[in-house]
Amino acid sequence: MRKPFNFSAGPAVLPEAVLARAASEMSDWHGTGMSVMEMSHRGKDYMGIQAQAEADLRELLNIPSGYRVLFLAGGATLQFAALALNLLPEDGSADYIDTGIWSSKAIGEAQRFGTVRVAASSKDSGYTRVPDRNDWNLDPNAAYVHLCGNETIGGVEFHDTPDVGRVPLVVDASSHILSRPMDVRRYGMIYGGAQKNIGPAGLSLVIIREDLPGRARRAMPSILDYGKQAENDSMINTPPTYAIYLAGLVFQWLKDLGGLTEMARRNEAKARLLYDALDASSFYSNPVAPENRSWMNVPFTLADASLDAEFLKGAEARGLMNLKGHRSVGGMRASIYNAMPLEGVQALVDYLKEFERTRA
Amino acid sequence: MRKPFNFSAGPAVLPEAVLARAASEMSDWHGTGMSVMEMSHRGKDYMGIQAQAEADLRELLNIPSGYRVLFLAGGATLQFAALALNLLPEDGSADYIDTGIWSSKAIGEAQRFGTVRVAASSKDSGYTRVPDRNDWNLDPNAAYVHLCGNETIGGVEFHDTPDVGRVPLVVDASSHILSRPMDVRRYGMIYGGAQKNIGPAGLSLVIIREDLPGRARRAMPSILDYGKQAENDSMINTPPTYAIYLAGLVFQWLKDLGGLTEMARRNEAKARLLYDALDASSFYSNPVAPENRSWMNVPFTLADASLDAEFLKGAEARGLMNLKGHRSVGGMRASIYNAMPLEGVQALVDYLKEFERTRA
Repeated sequence: MRKPFNFSAGPAVLPEAVLARAASEMSDWHGTGMSVMEMSHRGKDYMGIQAQAEADLRELLNIPSGYRVLFLAGGATLQFAALALNLLPEDGSADYIDTGIWSSKAIGEAQRFGTVRVAASSKDSGYTRVPDRNDWNLDPNAAYVHLCGNETIGGVEFHDTPDVGRVPLVVDASSHILSRPMDVRRYGMIYGGAQKNIGPAGLSLVIIREDLPGRARRAMPSILDYGKQAENDSMINTPPTYAIYLAGLVFQWLKDLGGLTEMARRNEAKARLLYDALDASSFYSNPVAPENRSWMNVPFTLADASLDAEFLKGAEARGLMNLKGHRSVGGMRASIYNAMPLEGVQALVDYLKEFERTRA
Repeated sequence: MRKPFNFSAGPAVLPEAVLARAASEMSDWHGTGMSVMEMSHRGKDYMGIQAQAEADLRELLNIPSGYRVLFLAGGATLQFAALALNLLPEDGSADYIDTGIWSSKAIGEAQRFGTVRVAASSKDSGYTRVPDRNDWNLDPNAAYVHLCGNETIGGVEFHDTPDVGRVPLVVDASSHILSRPMDVRRYGMIYGGAQKNIGPAGLSLVIIREDLPGRARRAMPSILDYGKQAENDSMINTPPTYAIYLAGLVFQWLKDLGGLTEMARRNEAKARLLYDALDASSFYSNPVAPENRSWMNVPFTLADASLDAEFLKGAEARGLMNLKGHRSVGGMRASIYNAMPLEGVQALVDYLKEFERTRA
């Protein structure tokens, strides 16, 4: 069988070149006779790897001075709590925009520690769009405004950065970070789990304006304290060194391909190919408002759900893997992150047409 | 150059066979055409990997039913906080035994959230022994008793499990877990970071008696809630899947070698070889009380500290790497975890003798 195309929502497909390089360096990194996994995090070799990863990320996202980059263990769900502990004072409140399941989870975690206002929600529309900015009920005194830049399950993406005035904007960018350029200056904090566009699960990135940590003045685990982590270059304790090394390989791969402008071009082309195929048929449908459709996660349903199992079986036989939708919503979902080549999307589109032709 | 011997305290040497297998499976795990890193954590393949890792760990440590095994993101420092959040009620207190720098860090984190009693300390002796059990001032109503089973920096190890009555005993086993058998029933909770004897940094193991989570009834990040993690098989969110896979490979390697009884035999032999060499010379010294000397981390000093740099340079020239002591204590430290072969310790002992002969 040729290499399958992996449409998993995360952990997800990684660049073949990155995996090949990681394999070749596994037992002997650059002639040291050691795996990166075996290196002291305080040693010169590993410190160089982490510093290069940060430098490459700063170049890719054009991160200005005045912002700190943290490489932290764990996924975005831990950061849902950490960001509230760091930024939400006990006597304050934060505004959250609710656009789907991950927004809701972020709200739930923050509510454990403080007052959350849901300033806008598209729940009534079945989470099929971003609420119109004119309908947001923002508090000018909020500690921050939080949004999920791309809902991995619902396939709803912010394609523009909303203006929220002087209140810091915090974005969960787990499933769209590095898919295209972002204007970092528009945000107080950008964070995300690594297991979509960055690297392996178990690592999160936090990019934070350096005046924000410490505002909430709360007791919290030291590891979750962004100010302390910034002071310690993400090394209050041993960071997830191998995951950071792999993230660094992905950053190099992105630079070699031409950076985020080129990735945006490729990702838009992949998304257009797939949405056009879905829209051209009444056999498939995607429920999301066209202007909010995700470039990364494309949920779709078959007009006849009784064909779902047969559809998935045929897909797997063609090497189109992990197309089953999230258990909370059913149907199908194709995740087409940076490392998914156009050929994978083309193969899926070919299969969509073939399946419709034979079963519709 | 032959493969160097890596005496790093952690991240540390891993078994060559494990690294070779990981490299060979990096791009294609068992004919799936995917890396373990690319697999959905909810998919059959990955779920099988994690289940096998747990089963093998249970077999190695003979973990009885009634104990839950959690695979959690992050290192032990995060668990210092989490265990207090889970087990230390706001109106209660916990007893801590202070035997060195890591014990002290655990105390510091717990104090952020509740009342800590230091029931015994060897600080006055310069942390060179475990305080005599008869001198411990335990509170029979303590929520738990905490100790660090092996002080990675000081090289002080508990070679017996102290009797603390009916109070749950919690042990930070980061740097000695899997080095020999443990009687899990004697503990309420055993935890540790992975980056010494288990696998890569960024993963922690928690083995906890199932009646203990939830006792403290505190607000905390969901990810740190042992009860919730147990209900969700460590998958409240995406766990550090690749690190868990590697840990599983290490568990299989340990089983293939004969399990923890065999590892104990090997580790004792390695430690004896090194301590005997240090004790046979007045040129080197180790300050730890003989009955508390660690099998895993062997700190030592040269009688003439002005030779330290030359000693380290000569060691590196012979492929004996990372022997420099922790920055907080200076001198030298040889960490000789499970994956350090006897040949590595022999090579170090040969060098100790040679260096003394030429420089003393």
